[in-house]
Amino acid sequence: MSYPARVQVVEVGPRDGLQNEPAPVPIAARVALIEALAEAGMTRIEAGSFVSPRWVPQMADTAEVLARLRPRPEVGYAVLVPNLQGLERALASGVREVAVFAAASESFSRRNVNGSIAESLDRFAPVLEAARARDLRVRGYVSCVLGCPYEGDVVPAAVARVAASLHAMGCHEIALGDTIGTGTPLQARRLVERVAADVPMTAIALHFHDTYGQALANILACLELGVSVVDAAVAGLGGCPYAPGAAGNAATEDVVYMLRGMGIETGIDLDVLAAAGRSIASQLGREPASKVARALAAAPPHP
Amino acid sequence: MSYPARVQVVEVGPRDGLQNEPAPVPIAARVALIEALAEAGMTRIEAGSFVSPRWVPQMADTAEVLARLRPRPEVGYAVLVPNLQGLERALASGVREVAVFAAASESFSRRNVNGSIAESLDRFAPVLEAARARDLRVRGYVSCVLGCPYEGDVVPAAVARVAASLHAMGCHEIALGDTIGTGTPLQARRLVERVAADVPMTAIALHFHDTYGQALANILACLELGVSVVDAAVAGLGGCPYAPGAAGNAATEDVVYMLRGMGIETGIDLDVLAAAGRSIASQLGREPASKVARALAAAPPHP
Repeated sequence: MSYPARVQVVEVGPRDGLQNEPAPVPIAARVALIEALAEAGMTRIEAGSFVSPRWVPQMADTAEVLARLRPRPEVGYAVLVPNLQGLERALASGVREVAVFAAASESFSRRNVNGSIAESLDRFAPVLEAARARDLRVRGYVSCVLGCPYEGDVVPAAVARVAASLHAMGCHEIALGDTIGTGTPLQARRLVERVAADVPMTAIALHFHDTYGQALANILACLELGVSVVDAAVAGLGGCPYAPGAAGNAATEDVVYMLRGMGIETGIDLDVLAAAGRSIASQLGREPASKVARALAAAPPHP
Repeated sequence: MSYPARVQVVEVGPRDGLQNEPAPVPIAARVALIEALAEAGMTRIEAGSFVSPRWVPQMADTAEVLARLRPRPEVGYAVLVPNLQGLERALASGVREVAVFAAASESFSRRNVNGSIAESLDRFAPVLEAARARDLRVRGYVSCVLGCPYEGDVVPAAVARVAASLHAMGCHEIALGDTIGTGTPLQARRLVERVAADVPMTAIALHFHDTYGQALANILACLELGVSVVDAAVAGLGGCPYAPGAAGNAATEDVVYMLRGMGIETGIDLDVLAAAGRSIASQLGREPASKVARALAAAPPHP
């Protein structure tokens, strides 16, 4: 086992984080957050989604958010798209990457995307075809990879099947989502080992929620296998303030702190990042759900 | 690398946790907490300390706390003792284990125990001698093993030196304390590797604070070396509610959840443990600083 020399940290706070806020965050605040993350050195930022505002009102105005961003050739912005209509809007907005989302559990798939796993993959086929024709990169999410809120355990082979399908359909990267954050390190490692039998390790990204406080340990366990793409949300965005058990993604600050301490390069300035997290958390009226952010605010780590 | 089949989780919340509360916790609440932890299956509980109440008023009445505990032959209670006087009080209270505390950094030693590292070891010599004569086990703490608030970096060799001295003096176990919680996984692993060159791996315990959110990942990294004793505080006690950056120990619930998920036996009932944590947190007027405790309270992990 050896660690990667460099890890791409994919910031999902402006999408996966803010879409879970009880009320939509103003456009200006969304733009300011994304700009601050780019200033911190993040080069991959999920900026929003083109799903129906009837389903996700928090992500309405994603086109306006993207239009207001300062041009930065070094930063890749991505958006979620559920269908061809979403893809067209993404193309019109100028992003070079979109993401589609499937699930590893049938029950979650039916409730979250209103169809079986096979149906959801069929629906994404034309999206992937059109994306390829327009030279757009497509990330594929697989949710419930370490457990399902309706079915409980999810076997690694089921995740590998969906991951391999998305990869075969043209997704450049498969993000393995521990949606409910119940996974533990050996389970996460065995999952990645199984998926890597069908999908190149370089195409695997970790997308772990921190509901049970395991996200960082799970990431560590998988880094040892050579995974080099990790999703995170600044300030641990995504936790619902009205449901204390619903934690968000691994906090970007905590992930970057760990990687830096391990000598793994991310290109991200932790102090600038933490300031970005404190700013958005303050606008949301709470403390950042990042221990690093809180500790840095309280006192510098070293004299 | 292989994981231990069983890990002893040492509960330090009633001591390291409650001694950091702004005001002393009532005796009845301390007793109720310790009883609840024992009911959860914890077999090693640090119940208090016999230091001067002028220095640590929160730990006054430790003798009274111990006197009120129901006899449980299966549970080992331990107390901190700074000197022979403390040892005598510990003996009178009937505990079978005490703990002494040294530091790996000179500056921290001078400020925390009012003497150099060598002086503190000299002071413990008669304590250890008397303890051995009375057949009492002595745990040795080494603080600042992954960083010092005054000196910054602490080299593993400095930690190993203090650990080896304490072990040679008769400590059955050396608890490596990341007092300020700045450590990261590879650093923690390298430290344990270095200490294990001078002290048996079976005599090493991890005592990691979660100030930077790294405690669980650091524990995971060291478990791979075969460490099988881990300190934790239920509800993540030890964080100061008035200093958001001062997090407590790794939360026992989160540690036990991780170990259970990895198939590592602890003998602890997580639900009973989490209830104990919620109870003391509620008495302290806050949410448990344990994501597992919060998640379990919000919804069961599996249907």
